[in-house]
Amino acid sequence: MDTVEFTPTPEQLAWTFGGVEPIMKVKPGTTMRLWCEDAYAGRVRSPADLPSQCIDINQVNPQTGPFHVEGAEPGDTLALHFVELEPARDWGVSTTIPFFGGLTGTDRTALLHGALPEVTWIYQYDSVRQSVTFEAARSDFRVDWPAEPMLGTVGVAPPAREVRSSLVPERFGGNMDTPELKAGATCYLGVNVPGALFSIGDGHYRQGEGEACGTAVEGAMNVTLIVELIKGGAPLWPRIEQDDWLIAVGSSRPLEDAWRIAQVEMITWLAELYGLDRMDGYQVVSQLAKAPIANVVDANYSSVVKLPKALLPAASAYDGMHRHLRTS
Amino acid sequence: MDTVEFTPTPEQLAWTFGGVEPIMKVKPGTTMRLWCEDAYAGRVRSPADLPSQCIDINQVNPQTGPFHVEGAEPGDTLALHFVELEPARDWGVSTTIPFFGGLTGTDRTALLHGALPEVTWIYQYDSVRQSVTFEAARSDFRVDWPAEPMLGTVGVAPPAREVRSSLVPERFGGNMDTPELKAGATCYLGVNVPGALFSIGDGHYRQGEGEACGTAVEGAMNVTLIVELIKGGAPLWPRIEQDDWLIAVGSSRPLEDAWRIAQVEMITWLAELYGLDRMDGYQVVSQLAKAPIANVVDANYSSVVKLPKALLPAASAYDGMHRHLRTS
Amino acid sequence: MDTVEFTPTPEQLAWTFGGVEPIMKVKPGTTMRLWCEDAYAGRVRSPADLPSQCIDINQVNPQTGPFHVEGAEPGDTLALHFVELEPARDWGVSTTIPFFGGLTGTDRTALLHGALPEVTWIYQYDSVRQSVTFEAARSDFRVDWPAEPMLGTVGVAPPAREVRSSLVPERFGGNMDTPELKAGATCYLGVNVPGALFSIGDGHYRQGEGEACGTAVEGAMNVTLIVELIKGGAPLWPRIEQDDWLIAVGSSRPLEDAWRIAQVEMITWLAELYGLDRMDGYQVVSQLAKAPIANVVDANYSSVVKLPKALLPAASAYDGMHRHLRTS
Amino acid sequence: MDTVEFTPTPEQLAWTFGGVEPIMKVKPGTTMRLWCEDAYAGRVRSPADLPSQCIDINQVNPQTGPFHVEGAEPGDTLALHFVELEPARDWGVSTTIPFFGGLTGTDRTALLHGALPEVTWIYQYDSVRQSVTFEAARSDFRVDWPAEPMLGTVGVAPPAREVRSSLVPERFGGNMDTPELKAGATCYLGVNVPGALFSIGDGHYRQGEGEACGTAVEGAMNVTLIVELIKGGAPLWPRIEQDDWLIAVGSSRPLEDAWRIAQVEMITWLAELYGLDRMDGYQVVSQLAKAPIANVVDANYSSVVKLPKALLPAASAYDGMHRHLRTS
Repeated sequence: MDTVEFTPTPEQLAWTFGGVEPIMKVKPGTTMRLWCEDAYAGRVRSPADLPSQCIDINQVNPQTGPFHVEGAEPGDTLALHFVELEPARDWGVSTTIPFFGGLTGTDRTALLHGALPEVTWIYQYDSVRQSVTFEAARSDFRVDWPAEPMLGTVGVAPPAREVRSSLVPERFGGNMDTPELKAGATCYLGVNVPGALFSIGDGHYRQGEGEACGTAVEGAMNVTLIVELIKGGAPLWPRIEQDDWLIAVGSSRPLEDAWRIAQVEMITWLAELYGLDRMDGYQVVSQLAKAPIANVVDANYSSVVKLPKALLPAASAYDGMHRHLRTS
Repeated sequence: MDTVEFTPTPEQLAWTFGGVEPIMKVKPGTTMRLWCEDAYAGRVRSPADLPSQCIDINQVNPQTGPFHVEGAEPGDTLALHFVELEPARDWGVSTTIPFFGGLTGTDRTALLHGALPEVTWIYQYDSVRQSVTFEAARSDFRVDWPAEPMLGTVGVAPPAREVRSSLVPERFGGNMDTPELKAGATCYLGVNVPGALFSIGDGHYRQGEGEACGTAVEGAMNVTLIVELIKGGAPLWPRIEQDDWLIAVGSSRPLEDAWRIAQVEMITWLAELYGLDRMDGYQVVSQLAKAPIANVVDANYSSVVKLPKALLPAASAYDGMHRHLRTS
Repeated sequence: MDTVEFTPTPEQLAWTFGGVEPIMKVKPGTTMRLWCEDAYAGRVRSPADLPSQCIDINQVNPQTGPFHVEGAEPGDTLALHFVELEPARDWGVSTTIPFFGGLTGTDRTALLHGALPEVTWIYQYDSVRQSVTFEAARSDFRVDWPAEPMLGTVGVAPPAREVRSSLVPERFGGNMDTPELKAGATCYLGVNVPGALFSIGDGHYRQGEGEACGTAVEGAMNVTLIVELIKGGAPLWPRIEQDDWLIAVGSSRPLEDAWRIAQVEMITWLAELYGLDRMDGYQVVSQLAKAPIANVVDANYSSVVKLPKALLPAASAYDGMHRHLRTS
Repeated sequence: MDTVEFTPTPEQLAWTFGGVEPIMKVKPGTTMRLWCEDAYAGRVRSPADLPSQCIDINQVNPQTGPFHVEGAEPGDTLALHFVELEPARDWGVSTTIPFFGGLTGTDRTALLHGALPEVTWIYQYDSVRQSVTFEAARSDFRVDWPAEPMLGTVGVAPPAREVRSSLVPERFGGNMDTPELKAGATCYLGVNVPGALFSIGDGHYRQGEGEACGTAVEGAMNVTLIVELIKGGAPLWPRIEQDDWLIAVGSSRPLEDAWRIAQVEMITWLAELYGLDRMDGYQVVSQLAKAPIANVVDANYSSVVKLPKALLPAASAYDGMHRHLRTS
């Protein structure tokens, strides 16, 4: 099957979902090796680099793509299977950003406080030990943490003519910022426009659930993925399958609505897999679901619902697509 | 050290935090063996028992207590260490309840829909295999799940003369409905009134994060716990310590505020343990926190923030109280 | 008919709804002349008095009452008609309070900001011109505004054994902080306990909708009211009737839930008054309702829905109780 | 000065803000007479027309425009003064729409309820009496209400390459659904792209605050407006000036965030007009603001804050632009 390698030039980076011409066409079944720039567009590189001085707010969270998937039509399901996520630099970076984040007044939670202090933390990445090192800015606290590479942003072009900033998580995917989007995961997205026009970006070497300060350990990433297409079956909201988990992601505000969306999407999935009545599905998620928060900082908040396959009867979501991709 | 056994009579059950005379006095260091009735007050026992017909809304979620802890003064910290939680019946029960739950219109999210169907699911508990069996109400779907006993409700009397229903999670603890309150956990609560006046109840044989339909696998529980008192040091919001995790619980609406509370409480805890500046603490939770939702159904929603001890320098919260209680 | 005058001593002030013995019994039909202390308990009297130094957080928003209404039983409707609200001092006061208010981080919207500046504004009240004078703290801006006396807090004892701080607005009324509670208004409250046990307080010489900074022009108030009792008919949430308006008040978080509650309560009222189907009632509020926000600062937020009587067919709410009280 | 008349053909209707080529260029100072189709695109015309059968969800809320304003640059302020709004048909229409509205489960507040009943109400418009007639669908309740024509949607192209559905209210204006946008009002919008690219639409013959069921008395509208341009001074969020009121509109979720945005925008405006310190401005809005809810049904909720000019010192916003336009 085809393999495609692609590293965008700075001019080729995409800043939106929708509104951008496809950078190339790919056939279903294609393996791709893609390079992704970090969310700061590579502009924050030392503790002295402050976002308010380095960043152009219209040029953050650059995406690699969009890719036109041949044969994809509205109502189809795009499957993106992440084979490998490999940090592409030996450092990552996180910062606070004025009036952005979960524990500060923001443009939406508009308050009369001045901005919190702006701080930049540079993390060294050790590719042998696969760890990152946190060094406190205001004391000598220092600790190593395992790297857990993930993609903050995976999405397709939105419906209804809209063009959305790559900072937004929505039905079309986008900036969901969930650690579940890691190597070994298959992401299912409903196709809204011919060709699907998917993009990926926002590599995180590590991220806590909620992404409290608004940024993870941001870093450029080499991503190996396989593109597949399922005719029909478009889920209403993004779904993720891992070897051990079925996952749905909801994004909205307030946070309880993001959670509700993910719960209802999962109940729908249970009905598809097991013919389970919705009230019985409601009971299953009530007793079985894990519900880690993804982000409480983006234009929509994102909430994840996970069910362990081991506690459900055997079933083949999308005719066994995930297993197929894992073994291909 | 003393051991106390107590099984309340129906007349001795408490329905509020605050507003109830202590059922007994206990000394710090006491081990207690307590029996807790289920949240339905034992009134729902078969699939034919519907909550709207069986339940008195003023008599739900009964608590065992309150217990007066000798020497406890406002500003002190009550430590409750859960040694063992053992299902006290061979069945548990979950139901939908009209206009209560996370995926229905409620008394607060007041809408024009009629109530969802009222359904009662009885779960058999197998004490040998330590499992519960789910049987769908509307198909022949049937599956066993491991029992994971926990307490939905642990709290002390509130401050400022208030008396709160046992359905409410708040600063004083109460109906937090987090699966983290399980055997091996130590719960730290700020004392608001002399004697602390703690109560426990709402045994769950198993519960998903979020408790979507509003009820877990509810069941009577035998609880073995150790009571300890720390002079001073009252946390603003409930904290939980397990062998591997530091945990804070926030409760409010909307859900993002519950999450914010738990995040800030954890940053305060990091400052206490490591002298970490709050901006550095903000960074630590941003990259390290797990953030499972506890409940999105109660009078306040509850959100948990967890940090893995293994990824932090060694530290002794409350002078090693948890380790002391684990080994006592 | 009886007339009762009552000015509480400092020891007689009530700080909660529920949990307090009635200060006296009154018969339905009684006219009462009551004196109410201001929400600061009279402790903030000059620009140099800062709340954080003057106030005991357990002694704020004192209430005059509770009064036991003879014959009132759970399920009945208490009608309180406000005949006159007269400022009892020649000054009022407003302040910011650390971590309290609508445009600051709070105990619930927990953030990492330090507190906003603490400022006290003293307003002179001119009883002849019935105006208050605002003087800016940080410039020489100065302007007179009409006094528009209202009561921030009107309520009865809560159900289900609860005792709630006088800072809380809820189903039982309480700290709703709506400017609609002014002279000429009749407030209908569902009775939860024998005798109803109503209290009033929190006089405002003037308040903007939302009460943004958390405090109005707070001032002691002389209140003349008539107490009436309607057997049965308890509304689910507080209703207010004025000569020209039907009003419902919802209180919860987030603010949209407070609004939903008030809308649904009004649709219920339309069904009672006109036999209007709920879908038709939904349409009436959609095209006719005014929806001023009451408060976005208290333990619950409060939202008001108002319908103009002039645009509805003639009807007699509660058998013409308001008209009866206006002319009695 | 120029006068322009324009009635779009169906093919010329715009469905988004941004992403559409300008339909014409206009000079600042131009008076325009524009025809606007109703939000149903004219497809719902009798009680038998149900939205789920008549409407293409990608073709709702059509806009007249966009118009390129000569000389407008990012950072400038577009002033649109509404001289006259005249119903263009002798009937208007409102409906419920499945899973859309304030008192139903929605795509965001995702619940397990089935849809509320779908109902269409046709209102006759009497141009002589300037009234609309409500006829209940499920009883013989019938009542006349004054027409109060307004525009639900007024906006410019968004920043940062985005294209947004005309259903969205945001910083760029859009579907705010506030009754304040009526004849005699001047709307100030920050310009994001060269030419501003403004559009208008969504005529309402009458609307309650909140727009509870999701639709007003929708109707085609003839709009006379004057376009003006102010160099610089772009407000962060939409502002409206009327003869008697200064108004700011915030749009977000949850509703309290929309309110916060509008409050802070108004405090900023007070600082511009009077040099008022932000803490003093906080006090002014606390005691003086009206806060009617605009909508609790759209993609963002909208909240209005209003200050009465009569209770503030004389001032000239935007160098007296509103007065100039009122008298031109």
